[in-house]
Amino acid sequence: MTSIDLNADLGEGFGRWRLTDDERLLAVVTSANVACGFHAGDAATMRRVCELAAERGVRIGAQVSYRDLAGFGRRAMDVPPAELAAEVAYQIGALEVFARAAGARVAYVKPHGALYNRVVRDEEQAGAVVDGVVLADATLPVLGLPGSRLLEVARKAGLPVVTEAFADRAYTDEGTLVPRRQEGAVVTDPKAVVARSLDLARHGEVDARSGRRIEVRARSLCLHGDTPGAVELARRVRDSLEASGVRVEAFA
Amino acid sequence: MTSIDLNADLGEGFGRWRLTDDERLLAVVTSANVACGFHAGDAATMRRVCELAAERGVRIGAQVSYRDLAGFGRRAMDVPPAELAAEVAYQIGALEVFARAAGARVAYVKPHGALYNRVVRDEEQAGAVVDGVVLADATLPVLGLPGSRLLEVARKAGLPVVTEAFADRAYTDEGTLVPRRQEGAVVTDPKAVVARSLDLARHGEVDARSGRRIEVRARSLCLHGDTPGAVELARRVRDSLEASGVRVEAFA
Amino acid sequence: MTSIDLNADLGEGFGRWRLTDDERLLAVVTSANVACGFHAGDAATMRRVCELAAERGVRIGAQVSYRDLAGFGRRAMDVPPAELAAEVAYQIGALEVFARAAGARVAYVKPHGALYNRVVRDEEQAGAVVDGVVLADATLPVLGLPGSRLLEVARKAGLPVVTEAFADRAYTDEGTLVPRRQEGAVVTDPKAVVARSLDLARHGEVDARSGRRIEVRARSLCLHGDTPGAVELARRVRDSLEASGVRVEAFA
Amino acid sequence: MTSIDLNADLGEGFGRWRLTDDERLLAVVTSANVACGFHAGDAATMRRVCELAAERGVRIGAQVSYRDLAGFGRRAMDVPPAELAAEVAYQIGALEVFARAAGARVAYVKPHGALYNRVVRDEEQAGAVVDGVVLADATLPVLGLPGSRLLEVARKAGLPVVTEAFADRAYTDEGTLVPRRQEGAVVTDPKAVVARSLDLARHGEVDARSGRRIEVRARSLCLHGDTPGAVELARRVRDSLEASGVRVEAFA
Repeated sequence: MTSIDLNADLGEGFGRWRLTDDERLLAVVTSANVACGFHAGDAATMRRVCELAAERGVRIGAQVSYRDLAGFGRRAMDVPPAELAAEVAYQIGALEVFARAAGARVAYVKPHGALYNRVVRDEEQAGAVVDGVVLADATLPVLGLPGSRLLEVARKAGLPVVTEAFADRAYTDEGTLVPRRQEGAVVTDPKAVVARSLDLARHGEVDARSGRRIEVRARSLCLHGDTPGAVELARRVRDSLEASGVRVEAFA
Repeated sequence: MTSIDLNADLGEGFGRWRLTDDERLLAVVTSANVACGFHAGDAATMRRVCELAAERGVRIGAQVSYRDLAGFGRRAMDVPPAELAAEVAYQIGALEVFARAAGARVAYVKPHGALYNRVVRDEEQAGAVVDGVVLADATLPVLGLPGSRLLEVARKAGLPVVTEAFADRAYTDEGTLVPRRQEGAVVTDPKAVVARSLDLARHGEVDARSGRRIEVRARSLCLHGDTPGAVELARRVRDSLEASGVRVEAFA
Repeated sequence: MTSIDLNADLGEGFGRWRLTDDERLLAVVTSANVACGFHAGDAATMRRVCELAAERGVRIGAQVSYRDLAGFGRRAMDVPPAELAAEVAYQIGALEVFARAAGARVAYVKPHGALYNRVVRDEEQAGAVVDGVVLADATLPVLGLPGSRLLEVARKAGLPVVTEAFADRAYTDEGTLVPRRQEGAVVTDPKAVVARSLDLARHGEVDARSGRRIEVRARSLCLHGDTPGAVELARRVRDSLEASGVRVEAFA
Repeated sequence: MTSIDLNADLGEGFGRWRLTDDERLLAVVTSANVACGFHAGDAATMRRVCELAAERGVRIGAQVSYRDLAGFGRRAMDVPPAELAAEVAYQIGALEVFARAAGARVAYVKPHGALYNRVVRDEEQAGAVVDGVVLADATLPVLGLPGSRLLEVARKAGLPVVTEAFADRAYTDEGTLVPRRQEGAVVTDPKAVVARSLDLARHGEVDARSGRRIEVRARSLCLHGDTPGAVELARRVRDSLEASGVRVEAFA
């Protein structure tokens, strides 16, 4: 029987501001990428999300980012590797306190936003992220894009790696994501998103933007929770996966 | 044989800025209060200070603060207790990563600046600091002023407490510190500081500002490292203590 | 004919986060308290709000705050007066650029959150806020609570002062606001808020929490825009005022 | 008679931290690039530096930066143009308050650190900086590298431009700066720096790293003030320029 993990970004408010509907998302996903304070996520929010996740048996991951609250971590930054490694470790450590206090632990690491995109190709920063993870805990899995430098470097460093796919993003024929700036980069039709989720989970395949069927092997699907209707769509994806016989569960 | 711990604030730079002469201070003190990023202390500096401290066998403590880089944590803030507790835990967790990576661990917690002063009397914030420590690690000793609410609340919560004294600060007859704004609050004569260190370490006594001899029982002496000549003075204090037969060592 | 100004806080998002429905509020109020980056309000948002306000002829005010994004400026801080004065001036200057670029100008200053509450009684910080305003522009009116130290100090410094009242806040018999922590501090019934707005605007009176009728002379009413239904309620208040013959216009 | 402007970065502390020796630098330079709070420079420091500069007749410039205190503005960031333009304008406006309060005004704009380097070639960000300057004041000169995109775009937008050169940096044969990472990028011999200053100011020429004499026409020389001995060297440069008959004065 096929199984798939569902991950989403959580705890992406800061102080007075809220963004993600954490309670409802936690009823859908099996892995929670918790913001650690650098692009979003104040300490009290981190604590609450960890408690809720632990209660519901949702796995907790550290969603590490560039230090950039004003830009929500979406602006690529030329951070020297030693600083970046230390910042990644710092964020993991901060989250670990709340995960442990809730009776759980940080179970994986996933870079956020511009850092996520940068380490697809930038070997130096990919290495820095991996160094940061190793500093914090050399057994932590890294969640990322198949074929990314990040996963390659992580694997070489002996870290477990977990691949993910996006049902709501268009793919090139080469299996990379169509950049957000390009038209058609985001799949907005809910039916299409559900269908693509099934293709990805059951067959490890998806229709590229060209119409060609391509292979995208992923152990986790990333769902989005910060747009109107996003939680309902995430719910539909999960229901459809389960109805079609796919087991939805955190990666091993 | 009498023994005393010597603690000082370290790693109090941020990014491009430096303040404390960490290398030289680490050759003098037995306990390092490492800034955790809220009043000072970027991640790379935290890492380096932990490595140096571990190499030299100096104990690592989390110097937790209000979130206030612009004010260096010296401005009292009415932070709601739940937020403050989470922020304290966050800082401890972040430092723990670097302590562990260096083969050591966070061995105690000491509030910084305005928070340190506030929890001498403010029971609510004292409780929040203790909650934060317990969240992070319910076995961590708390370092603070004898007679402070902080140590009282910590003791009730089952945390070990460690008292400290200041050889370069004037005391009232009641054994509290003369507020910095008042004249004569700081003892600047190096000879006096050395003599007072000996009084405190050997006899648990010191001359109050009034001239009266008072009892100040402290397991640790706090040395300052952020002013010109401070490291030399710290060195003299340590040498004098050792020459007089006091064993200088981290608290148990 | 009676006239009243309606003011509300605007531009209180930061980067990715939004809070206030600026466009719709600008259709209701006559004075916009624009966040200046210290508790909320990134530069791009400040620019946009100034442009919209100028287009609609809404007066622009600098909503100055403690430097506290994490606490949304709601945590009282012991900022030394010289620092506070400079920070107030800094915020006014930053906003002035966008007001001027939009063909308008900063027309008044109103402290935000914890600073607003603090300067009701704290003479030192009230003086610092006034110093900051004078540094920036010694002709700028200050908007605040009748009877507050802030307005008193501002008046002495030669600044114009503008009083404001809150239709959705309970008052004591002495005409001060019931602290938010106390029960009944906030009036939530829309009808009551509308009726109180009329009482305040037409008669300079309102029912205190005790039921006693008290005098509250205010040139401006503060409306809230950051809760569900808030904009609709603000709209109703304005419509009711106008229907009852009150002219709604910015203070002179 | 030849004349040259001498500029240096000032006010580059933040809160408790100091970096530049502002008082002594102000006795040497004719133009002060004042940090505006985004990479360094708290409000109180900005105020003080403006007062000192105005007293001594030193021209005040806005040293605008990416929002990056942790990285001191030295990490290139992919800030969207609209955000960058607004951030540049925000910084200029904030400084303008203090310049005006001191009886002076912001007289030019110079990007700092990574932003300075980025706009040498990046047309989009160069355009954003220029947009920000125009937003704040469409008559403000922009100080930058000869041949940079920044100056080109600024000129097209109708802004006055001022070229600068570095006596302590190596040049390529094409007249661009040798990147700091390369060996020999920085000229450390004080005598060489003085000699190069004279070559630049009197002949508009300097020896490139290759040994070839190249033309570098600059209206201003940038002096550094944040390293040991820097102020003394700056003093020597000024004295030598004046002794050789060069008039040291702010650009027109």
